[in-house]
Amino acid sequence: MNLAAIHHEATQEYCFCMEPGKFLFRLQTGKNDLYSVTLHTRDKYLPLKIKDTRRSTPMKWVASDGLRDYYEAELEFQVVCLRYCFELEDHAGHRVYFSNCGFTDSIPEDIERFFDCPQTLREEECFRVPSWAANKVIYQIFPSRFAANRAVEESVWYQAPIGSKADLGGSLRGVISHLDYIRDLGVDVIYLTPIFQSNSTHKYDTIDYYTIDPSFGTVDDLKELVDRAHEMGLRVILDGVFNHTSRDFFAFKDILDNQAESVYKDWYYVDQFPLCLTPGSHNYKCYGYFAGMPKVNLRCPAAAAYFTDVALHWLRKAGVDGWRLDVADEISHDFWRSFRKAVKAEFPEALIVGEIWHYAPDFLQGDQWDSVMNYPFYRNILDFVATGTAKASTFAGNLGFQRGNTHSAAYPLLWNLVGSHDTARLLYLCGENKQRQKLAAALQLLMPGMPMIYYGDEVGMTGAHDPDCRRGMLWDEKRQDKDMHCWYRRLLKLRREQPVILNGQITSEEVRDEDGLICMHRRMNGQNITLLFHVKEDRIHIPELAGKRDLLNMNVFDGTVNGIAAMVLV
Amino acid sequence: MNLAAIHHEATQEYCFCMEPGKFLFRLQTGKNDLYSVTLHTRDKYLPLKIKDTRRSTPMKWVASDGLRDYYEAELEFQVVCLRYCFELEDHAGHRVYFSNCGFTDSIPEDIERFFDCPQTLREEECFRVPSWAANKVIYQIFPSRFAANRAVEESVWYQAPIGSKADLGGSLRGVISHLDYIRDLGVDVIYLTPIFQSNSTHKYDTIDYYTIDPSFGTVDDLKELVDRAHEMGLRVILDGVFNHTSRDFFAFKDILDNQAESVYKDWYYVDQFPLCLTPGSHNYKCYGYFAGMPKVNLRCPAAAAYFTDVALHWLRKAGVDGWRLDVADEISHDFWRSFRKAVKAEFPEALIVGEIWHYAPDFLQGDQWDSVMNYPFYRNILDFVATGTAKASTFAGNLGFQRGNTHSAAYPLLWNLVGSHDTARLLYLCGENKQRQKLAAALQLLMPGMPMIYYGDEVGMTGAHDPDCRRGMLWDEKRQDKDMHCWYRRLLKLRREQPVILNGQITSEEVRDEDGLICMHRRMNGQNITLLFHVKEDRIHIPELAGKRDLLNMNVFDGTVNGIAAMVLV
Repeated sequence: MNLAAIHHEATQEYCFCMEPGKFLFRLQTGKNDLYSVTLHTRDKYLPLKIKDTRRSTPMKWVASDGLRDYYEAELEFQVVCLRYCFELEDHAGHRVYFSNCGFTDSIPEDIERFFDCPQTLREEECFRVPSWAANKVIYQIFPSRFAANRAVEESVWYQAPIGSKADLGGSLRGVISHLDYIRDLGVDVIYLTPIFQSNSTHKYDTIDYYTIDPSFGTVDDLKELVDRAHEMGLRVILDGVFNHTSRDFFAFKDILDNQAESVYKDWYYVDQFPLCLTPGSHNYKCYGYFAGMPKVNLRCPAAAAYFTDVALHWLRKAGVDGWRLDVADEISHDFWRSFRKAVKAEFPEALIVGEIWHYAPDFLQGDQWDSVMNYPFYRNILDFVATGTAKASTFAGNLGFQRGNTHSAAYPLLWNLVGSHDTARLLYLCGENKQRQKLAAALQLLMPGMPMIYYGDEVGMTGAHDPDCRRGMLWDEKRQDKDMHCWYRRLLKLRREQPVILNGQITSEEVRDEDGLICMHRRMNGQNITLLFHVKEDRIHIPELAGKRDLLNMNVFDGTVNGIAAMVLV
Repeated sequence: MNLAAIHHEATQEYCFCMEPGKFLFRLQTGKNDLYSVTLHTRDKYLPLKIKDTRRSTPMKWVASDGLRDYYEAELEFQVVCLRYCFELEDHAGHRVYFSNCGFTDSIPEDIERFFDCPQTLREEECFRVPSWAANKVIYQIFPSRFAANRAVEESVWYQAPIGSKADLGGSLRGVISHLDYIRDLGVDVIYLTPIFQSNSTHKYDTIDYYTIDPSFGTVDDLKELVDRAHEMGLRVILDGVFNHTSRDFFAFKDILDNQAESVYKDWYYVDQFPLCLTPGSHNYKCYGYFAGMPKVNLRCPAAAAYFTDVALHWLRKAGVDGWRLDVADEISHDFWRSFRKAVKAEFPEALIVGEIWHYAPDFLQGDQWDSVMNYPFYRNILDFVATGTAKASTFAGNLGFQRGNTHSAAYPLLWNLVGSHDTARLLYLCGENKQRQKLAAALQLLMPGMPMIYYGDEVGMTGAHDPDCRRGMLWDEKRQDKDMHCWYRRLLKLRREQPVILNGQITSEEVRDEDGLICMHRRMNGQNITLLFHVKEDRIHIPELAGKRDLLNMNVFDGTVNGIAAMVLV
């Protein structure tokens, strides 16, 4: 038994409350190392002679990555406080017990050597996410380039924005006029990148958080957008840039005017006065090395209160459904904890999503964000489908890693993207190979989580890294790739209509590196489904699946896969 | 290479700020698996063409447990935000790289695949502990049984307290009159179990947190105790029981009087009104199943504010040096975070120590407690020395586990106990074998951390579990074990005078299970020291150490260890 690979801590990362009285326990082991895992539990305080509270629960395998297996057990109980240990058996019948004092050959007699789960007594630590969000699909809109409500020259609209301050005509009214299109596509949530007053096209350097950028419209436009979206069953998420501001933001301007005398001097990280604005010689902290984006000091209570109020203001005023938070991992846990408390106290159903580019479970423990921009998912799909640098088993293993390590409340809320305004477009990264984009879209949209579609990907838009990925949305039907659009709509329809795709338990998974093939078999309520993904150009035969109906390609699978393909077989 | 055993997350458990600009990185690997580990770092935002910020730092092995090796690297840098990955080489020269995308054969070209350390941008998360506390020695006093300031019959004083409400005469004035004794023993910190008004002997069910129990004395007595202790260079820590109260506490009494109309009804967890007090049928949450100790609901802002004020009150009023917090793990992280903020804002040098019986790193990340009652340390020593159920390698491995897993700021502050008012006494658990107690004391007092001596252990007191472990302190010199007292004093003197014992780096460690032998070699500033611990009754020869001076037993080691022994060899 690979004991060094076995991992569990009596912390919220490995055992936590799912809902009052219901708890989840997790254990990691070496891959294929164990035959069975059993969880032994007991009340912490009741002696056995008063009441025998001992229970044994088999733990279920739920996922593997390339190296580890992930086991889980859900338990319901009403004891005051729980103690527990694990019984592990390998394929040779060798058995060890794992408790707070490590590995032993027999179950510890002394209950004080068990792990403790005082989370049973700390109900307030239960991770509560918005009830509407699991597995919903997001559509990301970059407002300045999505839809204009005035005439814009085609040659300007369909090219990458030149200069960071271009006003290209995109507006909230433009979005409103295309809500039908968005709803018809089959998504559930609209995520707008920043819409507040700013001199830049991208608006990530905000001047006034309480004002809609005039080029985008008015407060009434936003309210109308949200109201009409809600009527259509769509949700709207805004982008909160609280890590940094524009230098034209009132507080920074006040420091420029009054220097060390400014009452706002603690709102930023100023090394010394007078301020020097010259990039490279600037003497204040900023986002990265962008002197134009001074970093806000959210340790300053007044600044923290201000930006929390911004979030509350738009939830109240416009009825938006949540916030995506820019550069969120460069802001302290402490701020996010108080931010969440303030937001959820008034809007328990508001979604809080942090931008973070790496795996970091510490933000998803229930007291900070509900979800993250899932960039590891993005890289995983690109490596497997676009660049071909990852094997099928690596791809599947990375999915297993996320399933095994992400808090169960957050897992179905992960924003599974395959591109954004900060990356080159999917089609571009696929070398303009549309079959590859289709496969990537299928992998994205047939998985649990909140997949995010970057505006225009669904009609075949391409583009290199910023600014090229920010060309105007292809409204000209002659330019749209109708076949691609149809593919996205069909995937989204299947996703809605076949709950087994997202919620079915994986009964088995066939992964063939040499063929570039993944077959996931899922089952729920007696219904079986097979998701087939093939990433190579060549032809392979899978006779055992022949004759099944392919709900995605709307034909009957003849047992031969011709090149790159995705299928949904029943 | 045992890849499944390699563990690191880009969270504060594995990479954190030690002081502004100085960071610690940690990695776990399979034991004896690797030849070298290198940390590669780079600024997150500066492109190489602008400035090459790449650095490579060898990681040092710092500890092993039975299964894993622990590596660390301390780094100083002034970059905006750091990205990093690990290079691992095994003994056969096989080399892999470990980053945010798992294991690869070469270093990832794309810096976005590195781990991220945004902690560089989150200075407020630096773990700041009181500057006075590292490696200081605690003396635990159970005030009702330590020293009386009136005549108490010997037959009453020297027996276990009968009945939980006995007033046995112990008082603060009694403690004051023995401060010289405490100082002379060589300890640094006095920890008093609860002293506030209560009807019980142990006073863990408080009636009034703002009143010293009349049997113990007055506020002036406490102030005098603290002032005189401070004059002698001693610190004083109080015991805060904020998890539960007595039923005679004013808020609970108000609920009893006014039931659902009480303004304090949210201060507790009441299932329904009217309250039923009958144990077993009681309809409110309590500590364990003790109906006499109703559990406080610290989610209630007024209750949280009240108990935080209690802590601040005694820091202000009596100048005490910190709080040991009872049943602290059954109170939420959220409460402790706000508690720490309030306490440290006014008293940055106050020590905050949680009672917890199991290993739980989530409370020691810098935002909650400074330290814990280290019960895993207690069990480790007992298993090795008292019951003989643990091998030398298990004992040493458990020490390594704590060294490798505890936050570096908290590690020298761990309250390393070998007994308390909640356990049988060390000597009793050693089967009254004084050699074993001496060895246990040596293992405890010659290690980093804050060892805690339970009053009277140093003069040979014995006793089974509560109440027997709470007999009156042996002040009768005829009854005191002077040899034991001398042993403790000598250990404490060595601990003070030879910093290499605590702070020297372990250069090698010899662990022989068959002989029950551990030799730890430490080195600091060119000074070497060997700590020798032998747990078996038989005689062994260690000729290679013969001729060294034994600072503890004050002789020259002749190369033969006769039975159970501890030595400090130079």
